[in-house]
Amino acid sequence: MSGKFYSVGIGPGNPEFITLRAAKLIKSADIIAIPVKKYGEKSTAFDIVEKAFDLKDKRIEEIEFLMSSDKAVRLESRKKGIEKIAAFLESGKNVVMITLGDVSIYSTCTYINKQIKNLGYENEIVSGVPSFCAAAAKAGISLCEENEALAVIPAVNTELDLKKVIEMFDNVVIMKAGKNIDKIYACLKNLGMTENAVVTSCVGMENEVIEPIKENGSYGYFTTVIIKKQGFTVPDI
Amino acid sequence: MSGKFYSVGIGPGNPEFITLRAAKLIKSADIIAIPVKKYGEKSTAFDIVEKAFDLKDKRIEEIEFLMSSDKAVRLESRKKGIEKIAAFLESGKNVVMITLGDVSIYSTCTYINKQIKNLGYENEIVSGVPSFCAAAAKAGISLCEENEALAVIPAVNTELDLKKVIEMFDNVVIMKAGKNIDKIYACLKNLGMTENAVVTSCVGMENEVIEPIKENGSYGYFTTVIIKKQGFTVPDI
Repeated sequence: MSGKFYSVGIGPGNPEFITLRAAKLIKSADIIAIPVKKYGEKSTAFDIVEKAFDLKDKRIEEIEFLMSSDKAVRLESRKKGIEKIAAFLESGKNVVMITLGDVSIYSTCTYINKQIKNLGYENEIVSGVPSFCAAAAKAGISLCEENEALAVIPAVNTELDLKKVIEMFDNVVIMKAGKNIDKIYACLKNLGMTENAVVTSCVGMENEVIEPIKENGSYGYFTTVIIKKQGFTVPDI
Repeated sequence: MSGKFYSVGIGPGNPEFITLRAAKLIKSADIIAIPVKKYGEKSTAFDIVEKAFDLKDKRIEEIEFLMSSDKAVRLESRKKGIEKIAAFLESGKNVVMITLGDVSIYSTCTYINKQIKNLGYENEIVSGVPSFCAAAAKAGISLCEENEALAVIPAVNTELDLKKVIEMFDNVVIMKAGKNIDKIYACLKNLGMTENAVVTSCVGMENEVIEPIKENGSYGYFTTVIIKKQGFTVPDI
């Protein structure tokens, strides 16, 4: 009998934000699969899981998905990765592939899951807490209330006009914002809204930062800016 | 010593999607607080927690937050609710207030948390899996990939032009869509995109529905429509 494939979101960084279902699957997995951009690369997702569970008797397998700008290279790498997973499943092993945050948010896992499913293997996607939810929680703010709308955009998306998005939406989450603070700050200044944004970086990790946006700020990869048109003030009772 | 206040997201419906942290807090809480729109009202969040944990020795307290159209009535009710929580904290009890999904997404919990904090009590917001992530997982689709943008809007938001949002964003999540399928369908038809939307209702519950959008569909309160401009097809390897 073939094994089953699980794409599992492990949440934003702190092992305590792993769900009961993800914990159960990780503990009972035959193989923990770690998607990497390059074999041997450090995996933040694996670091978190390793801290939380005893994995010494587990088989750990990196699966390489190259991020080349050449589409043919990317597809060939994906094909190899999926064939590697399929071989494990074919041998009857259950494979739990882990990803940071939630599976549906900026992860290749749903894509891989679909292809595994198309090959005829049983599979399940297991949701996790997205990083922007944890960022909002740590900043003590909501992402949307009542009938408000929320936009989630990566800082590197050049097709969307950031000013227009901020004008249209009550709340805006800008992901991967670490190297784009200047651009975001300039846009907010233009709209008179520099007081309406908070920078969150490495939430739940040791080097966590939560602070108002400032000109010339520079942060790491796991940086999210949250903009709230209504501001951050909650009236006292 | 005063107690601590926790606003805890318990995820989208299935108790297995509760996080390890939420589980630990619920188990050790002195008081489980259930926000209700009216005293005596059925709480879906409590039903889930009750299924997952042994609560027979716990003190369970409903906290009423009236949803009146009269702002003064709403604020007065909030004030009373917060005073009730504060009295528990003052007596040294830890209070865990539970909410469906994540705390930052369409919940009053961040608001209540801020007011409790303003009164000087220790507090913590504990993120959960938002319902739209679980909906995407069950539908086997992503909410955003690579540099794509995502919009999350409630169906009842009349300030936003739905057509414009769909045109601008790669992916759109429409919450509380149960009674607004006609409006959404008409908009998609107008854009030639009726094949690009999936309806998800009561995800993780017994009466779960996942199906393509259809004209004249009508569903319950917990209904989310996910629209993907790129469609749902993933190429075979």
